[in-house]
Amino acid sequence: MSTQPRQHHVRWAGEDTLRMPPDRAALLADLLGKNGRLHVVSNRGPITFELDPDVPAGLTAGRGAGGLVTALVELGRHAPVSWTAAALTEGDKTVSRFLQELGDPAGPGGNGSADHAATLALVRALIEGALPHHDVRLRYEVLPEDVFDGYYRVVANPLLWFLQHQMYALPLAPNIDSTMVAAWRQGYRAANERLAEAAVAAAGGAERPLFLVQDYHLYLAPARIRELLPDASILHFTHIPWPPDSIWQVLPQGMRRAICEGLLASDIVGLQTDRYANHFMDTVASFVRDARIDPDSRLIRWRDRRVRVRTYPISVDPDGLAEFARSAPVEERVARLRGRLQRVRPTSGGPDAPLVIVRADRIEPSKNVLRGFVAFEALLVKRPELRQRVRFVAVQAPTRTSIPEYAHYAAAVREVVARINGLAEPDDQPIWIYDGSDYAMAIAALRLADVVMVNPVVDGMNLVAKEAVLVGERDPVLLLSETAGAAEQLAADSLIVAPADVAGTADQLERALLMPADERRARTRRLRYAVREQDIEWWLTRQLRDLAAVRRGEHPPSRRLRDTVRRIEEPLLS
Amino acid sequence: MSTQPRQHHVRWAGEDTLRMPPDRAALLADLLGKNGRLHVVSNRGPITFELDPDVPAGLTAGRGAGGLVTALVELGRHAPVSWTAAALTEGDKTVSRFLQELGDPAGPGGNGSADHAATLALVRALIEGALPHHDVRLRYEVLPEDVFDGYYRVVANPLLWFLQHQMYALPLAPNIDSTMVAAWRQGYRAANERLAEAAVAAAGGAERPLFLVQDYHLYLAPARIRELLPDASILHFTHIPWPPDSIWQVLPQGMRRAICEGLLASDIVGLQTDRYANHFMDTVASFVRDARIDPDSRLIRWRDRRVRVRTYPISVDPDGLAEFARSAPVEERVARLRGRLQRVRPTSGGPDAPLVIVRADRIEPSKNVLRGFVAFEALLVKRPELRQRVRFVAVQAPTRTSIPEYAHYAAAVREVVARINGLAEPDDQPIWIYDGSDYAMAIAALRLADVVMVNPVVDGMNLVAKEAVLVGERDPVLLLSETAGAAEQLAADSLIVAPADVAGTADQLERALLMPADERRARTRRLRYAVREQDIEWWLTRQLRDLAAVRRGEHPPSRRLRDTVRRIEEPLLS
Repeated sequence: MSTQPRQHHVRWAGEDTLRMPPDRAALLADLLGKNGRLHVVSNRGPITFELDPDVPAGLTAGRGAGGLVTALVELGRHAPVSWTAAALTEGDKTVSRFLQELGDPAGPGGNGSADHAATLALVRALIEGALPHHDVRLRYEVLPEDVFDGYYRVVANPLLWFLQHQMYALPLAPNIDSTMVAAWRQGYRAANERLAEAAVAAAGGAERPLFLVQDYHLYLAPARIRELLPDASILHFTHIPWPPDSIWQVLPQGMRRAICEGLLASDIVGLQTDRYANHFMDTVASFVRDARIDPDSRLIRWRDRRVRVRTYPISVDPDGLAEFARSAPVEERVARLRGRLQRVRPTSGGPDAPLVIVRADRIEPSKNVLRGFVAFEALLVKRPELRQRVRFVAVQAPTRTSIPEYAHYAAAVREVVARINGLAEPDDQPIWIYDGSDYAMAIAALRLADVVMVNPVVDGMNLVAKEAVLVGERDPVLLLSETAGAAEQLAADSLIVAPADVAGTADQLERALLMPADERRARTRRLRYAVREQDIEWWLTRQLRDLAAVRRGEHPPSRRLRDTVRRIEEPLLS
Repeated sequence: MSTQPRQHHVRWAGEDTLRMPPDRAALLADLLGKNGRLHVVSNRGPITFELDPDVPAGLTAGRGAGGLVTALVELGRHAPVSWTAAALTEGDKTVSRFLQELGDPAGPGGNGSADHAATLALVRALIEGALPHHDVRLRYEVLPEDVFDGYYRVVANPLLWFLQHQMYALPLAPNIDSTMVAAWRQGYRAANERLAEAAVAAAGGAERPLFLVQDYHLYLAPARIRELLPDASILHFTHIPWPPDSIWQVLPQGMRRAICEGLLASDIVGLQTDRYANHFMDTVASFVRDARIDPDSRLIRWRDRRVRVRTYPISVDPDGLAEFARSAPVEERVARLRGRLQRVRPTSGGPDAPLVIVRADRIEPSKNVLRGFVAFEALLVKRPELRQRVRFVAVQAPTRTSIPEYAHYAAAVREVVARINGLAEPDDQPIWIYDGSDYAMAIAALRLADVVMVNPVVDGMNLVAKEAVLVGERDPVLLLSETAGAAEQLAADSLIVAPADVAGTADQLERALLMPADERRARTRRLRYAVREQDIEWWLTRQLRDLAAVRRGEHPPSRRLRDTVRRIEEPLLS
């Protein structure tokens, strides 16, 4: 890890930190040919444009946050990329036709006015500023408001998100009523077709173009791409959990079958973990009558096609993260946190600085922050002497507060925090809350952590677990829910909890706080090795390698992740 | 079906209707030997005793309701049975030691007083009255109040019931806190051990005694029986759904592993459907490290034992049910319902009597009555002319109203019914509610049904679907949720709905009401054949035959049910 602080303006986008490994360069040349491009299709593009009357040009551009964009945006520095996405903001909509003009110089140009030329130059400059040295062509599709609404605000969120994170109380929700049916037909299906058609247009007649289609917003897009371009290579990757068929079974048959069949138009269906891959194959077996599944080779034969199911656990860029963790904004926050920790009154016999538990996540019910705090409270009741010695630093971002379930959940979290903190002075409070939209603060807290709590109810992967392993300076103990996707890679050296197990979480928290330094060091060393070994490079190269194998008519190897969850059995409650 | 009305005092317990088939007599002789008995172990015994100061003896006895008791109680007329259960009522507790004295004449008797002798005679007479001609010895175990509370009111209900019916909003519940941990250790585990030990005592040293252990209350009992009697034959049967391993995964590792290992002490683990059998094997594969699973032969090798996983879909007694359906109480209610239906104003061009939709269930969130009514409402909005032609007769019993989720759910149901019925006069209301604790009324309504709605979110089996097929006089269309266990046998000739699919349920309801008479007749004929073929006799014989095969060292055949759910694909929403 570099010790040299450096200036960074965006999320660990170290400009030259990622270097293209030679095997991937060869892979890309092989896959894309001389002038070919990778075609990424996703809901959210890598840059979000915002109208802003306070800046001279009236327009700003920001790099998107979130694991998906962060991971994929690096692509554009290694290979020419065309990226098709939905226009989400007014700014996105405004620049949409300029993006198209930039992406397709041979296409219909503007009106030739000076205004037009100036805006075109501005948009080009904004892209270059946000994604320097990337060969990225953006295509932002403007969907009619009612299409977007049904697609995004009704079907993708909350329906698919809630369902796939098992967040519904099924006797009460979801309700697939006529509104939902209309949102499915005229929203989700229509948006998927529009985005697929736009991506195909962006491919502009290239031979065997290669599409990387992203996530639960776009389950139907592969089918439309395949319809238009039977020879295309398509990999769809789902970033969120794929639940068992019993969860999908509450949905109308036509809906879930369309989802399965949309995905089966891909050459490769990618998922985060072996568990989700098994669930996906079970789901297809249950709902797609004419599919034949070979679970051992993870091959699905459907109609005249062969579809591979593969796992690509997403990860972080270790070098870029290391640099950002030493950047000025993070250093400034580390200093601030250290200062506050030093103000905590030392207890007799205890260490000078308190032990620090850290969590960093959105206040999203699936992240399980409520049970995490309740477990902490139970520990303080059992071991009152810890109240002075321990601080729980929670870097938390409110999210989707317009959804009632989220608002209620956030209120319940605030209530529990208030109960635990009571009337103590700020520095004496057991829980310290920081704004989670400040990513530098999250990394700063993770640097100082003795214990990192990652206890989601269900989580596709969870990158905080991987970031914590890399940036922690005190050999932090990782307390990890086995229902986080990351557990399939990291369970062996974490302290594993079951998400509803409040008592067990309190026990593991105690064990983590008391763990001897040498054990912490040994675990951290092995965890770091695991995360560095299977980083974001590995995630992407694995996909490209499998696609190349399929192109050659080979069967890409069906690798299993380490099935560590099963091997780890804590003697809790037995 | 008999057309001769007969008097019945209890739920279709026709005294001589069930005849022992010759092959089962041979099986029982083979399994039990000369003086052997079947040993049933369950939470609730076949008779519930109540203290009642208003009757001369101060004590009454009633046959238990519910599928489990109804099905198993018939055993006692075919084979000598010892039945061990928890004492649930004050009456049960009062008779407990008298039952033990009756069950074990060689054991310690009473105090020889006249009072004692009189009570003993009374208990004997009550049993003979409730279970005439049965050779049943009852043993009701009195559990300390705190043990019972943890076992029954904390762990079995609601934790296991909610979890296995997928009723939790997982971000909020369950919470395995220290109270739950104590309830697990000192309640559930202790009660399972006590009941297992009582059942072993009741077996009184018999050679290779045969235990039929029932349901989710007693997952740990097989392990304790096996410990005490290594040679015993044990079949555990779970009456409720077995959800996928992802649902169990929220529980502490020790708890779910203990549940799996408790069951793996059986020779045969019985479940209602193929889907649940697969889920069970997946659960063991995920959580029991040293188990090896062969999914094709449904064999689990665990330590030095071989455990078979088998499906025994529970059913009804067709002859007994037919007789009860013609009994005076049912006839009286049929006449009452017919009269009320005739008062409905005929519409021009419509039939004289309205079309009748029927549902009969407890107001239990998993039964999905709310979405059923909302779907009916949607149909009335779409086809307003049906408002006069259709009546929805709902025979509904409130249940577990002390659990907040149940009380809220019942209130929501009342609200929707009030909204749909509006201010209409009773006979003009689209929905007619009847008291579901009146079983004769449920059967009366099912006799008159044109459509029977069985749309649970999840349901182990659902016997109403099977009863409806047998007693319906108008060739009723069965509208069946595919997540009811019964769908694995009955899907092909039902109209299948996905439980959350309100729009689809409304469509299927319309289709059912409009279905031509000849199609209804043909479907009903095939459904009747399926239910008669696989009746309660078949359910029990299949278990005994498999146990006999295991005794002989053979591998009982691994039969699959008809996988009809997958074969039925409605063109909804596609």
